[in-house]
Amino acid sequence: MLNIDSILMAQKRIEPYIYKTPIIPSQNLGEILGCEVFIKPECMQRTNSFKIRGALNKMLSMPKDEVQRGVVAASSGNHGKGVAFAAKLLGVKATIVIPDTAPQIKVDGIKDLGAEVIQCKLSERHIIANELSEKYGYINIHPYNDYDIMAGQGTIGLEIVEQLKDVDTVVVPIGGGGLIAGISTAVKSKLPDVKIVGAEPYNLRRYAKSIEAGERVQLEEQKSEADALLTSTPGEKNYPIVSSLVSEFVGVKDEYLLKAMKLLLMEGKILAEPSSCIGIGAILQGELKVKRDEKICFVVSGGNTGIDKIKELEGISI
Amino acid sequence: MLNIDSILMAQKRIEPYIYKTPIIPSQNLGEILGCEVFIKPECMQRTNSFKIRGALNKMLSMPKDEVQRGVVAASSGNHGKGVAFAAKLLGVKATIVIPDTAPQIKVDGIKDLGAEVIQCKLSERHIIANELSEKYGYINIHPYNDYDIMAGQGTIGLEIVEQLKDVDTVVVPIGGGGLIAGISTAVKSKLPDVKIVGAEPYNLRRYAKSIEAGERVQLEEQKSEADALLTSTPGEKNYPIVSSLVSEFVGVKDEYLLKAMKLLLMEGKILAEPSSCIGIGAILQGELKVKRDEKICFVVSGGNTGIDKIKELEGISI
Repeated sequence: MLNIDSILMAQKRIEPYIYKTPIIPSQNLGEILGCEVFIKPECMQRTNSFKIRGALNKMLSMPKDEVQRGVVAASSGNHGKGVAFAAKLLGVKATIVIPDTAPQIKVDGIKDLGAEVIQCKLSERHIIANELSEKYGYINIHPYNDYDIMAGQGTIGLEIVEQLKDVDTVVVPIGGGGLIAGISTAVKSKLPDVKIVGAEPYNLRRYAKSIEAGERVQLEEQKSEADALLTSTPGEKNYPIVSSLVSEFVGVKDEYLLKAMKLLLMEGKILAEPSSCIGIGAILQGELKVKRDEKICFVVSGGNTGIDKIKELEGISI
Repeated sequence: MLNIDSILMAQKRIEPYIYKTPIIPSQNLGEILGCEVFIKPECMQRTNSFKIRGALNKMLSMPKDEVQRGVVAASSGNHGKGVAFAAKLLGVKATIVIPDTAPQIKVDGIKDLGAEVIQCKLSERHIIANELSEKYGYINIHPYNDYDIMAGQGTIGLEIVEQLKDVDTVVVPIGGGGLIAGISTAVKSKLPDVKIVGAEPYNLRRYAKSIEAGERVQLEEQKSEADALLTSTPGEKNYPIVSSLVSEFVGVKDEYLLKAMKLLLMEGKILAEPSSCIGIGAILQGELKVKRDEKICFVVSGGNTGIDKIKELEGISI
């Protein structure tokens, strides 16, 4: 189960190890986007993404003898880095299964934390993680389809309602749905009138399409600049939570992800990875309509990106 | 005269037009630098630098019939952008005299605000501004040697003591001394025990050398990555204030400016121009010694830099 109590317990559990990220108002961005902009910069989080919150909550909740068997995780990179951090903290072995298309900076970050990295095709990452779990007895730390993971990510929601009491709207990137399930549960239980918007890659609108169909749909595998949001179906445990708490889903094209990354960097002066800029991209694309006095908190979920990616922004017009 | 009252008056005067920038704690940077790091990101200020504060205070303080004659300013770029903004707001003509070595992004930013730009040799910028002032009757808005300018920049100090009541140390970049004179006057009058550190380019240590000599010295013109801090002698009105309130001066080499810019961007996730990263560079260079529990506020004075500059960071090791 995921509820406000499990999120409050997660907060206590992980507080000593994570950073409480600030809320950064950006009037520069606000003038361009036509609303009041507040950034929750999880790109500045330890390991440079929010994923450390869920990974720590999960692994600190497990019985000690269980976690000592070692852990394995399928990940596009950020969850793997979070799991590798938690494993290092607990002194246990971690194996991370990551697609061969993942940015090198993510692979390096995981290795630097002492975890073993196995690279494979995008579609095989969960299969290989399951195999390793069965073969070696490693605990499989799922990136989103897990209530402890969701509770950890939900601690961001607790921070938002404390730091920005009069927030109107929270915009959250969606992959499998772990982040938005946690945040929406926390925010809605404290401030029920806040609107939660989920932003997905345009060619991977698994939540929008599932809700339209009335059940979880499985999309075909797709490439996207949103390398952290490539999941092709909503998580089984995430879907009911997300579908009941999220007001609006927007689909953002790759072109607008990169425009948003450039805008956030050059005008907002904050560096984030493309996936994390998706909410800003939704406004630039005209998908998300906003009001001038609307206080919008953008969850900028990660910042594991390098100068190689920034160079790609040079020719892009905002 | 510069004192806390003139800075408080400046705050009232410019408040409707500037952004109150946040204080951003950076635990990621803190772990690397060995202290508690807080960034005052004037790179996120309107016009992307603090200079708008002084320019607005000066021009809003002037008699209307005087300012209507038009203004001229010698500037490495950021002051020019501030003056251009204030001139646009007041509906008066502005002419900015800027070195031909200034980054293109600064020239473009000034032109976009509707000011006329004259480019010249670095050493001639003040001479030409004076000539234009005499020839056309324009008011010359000096970038630092002016009490109203200093009072405007000092509003940053008021914000720091309000936002970070237990700050131990404030590290401020020094060019002519307008920013540090204003900030140190404001901070010291509210929190007399706070240590103020001034950071200058290593080959342009005009304050450190002047204080050693017991009088203002004039250095030879120099090139530096710190394009906003190229002044070769302390301002006449700034020097007595700075020499009495600043505890320590550090000289930072170009190499460490770029390392600091890369560190702030890749680990702190904040984009600033090289000049503004000088305080962080002082720690990396081993020039500024810090304690683990010391709360240090780095005034990151501007962010007028482009992807061309970020590309130069690629080969640099931190």
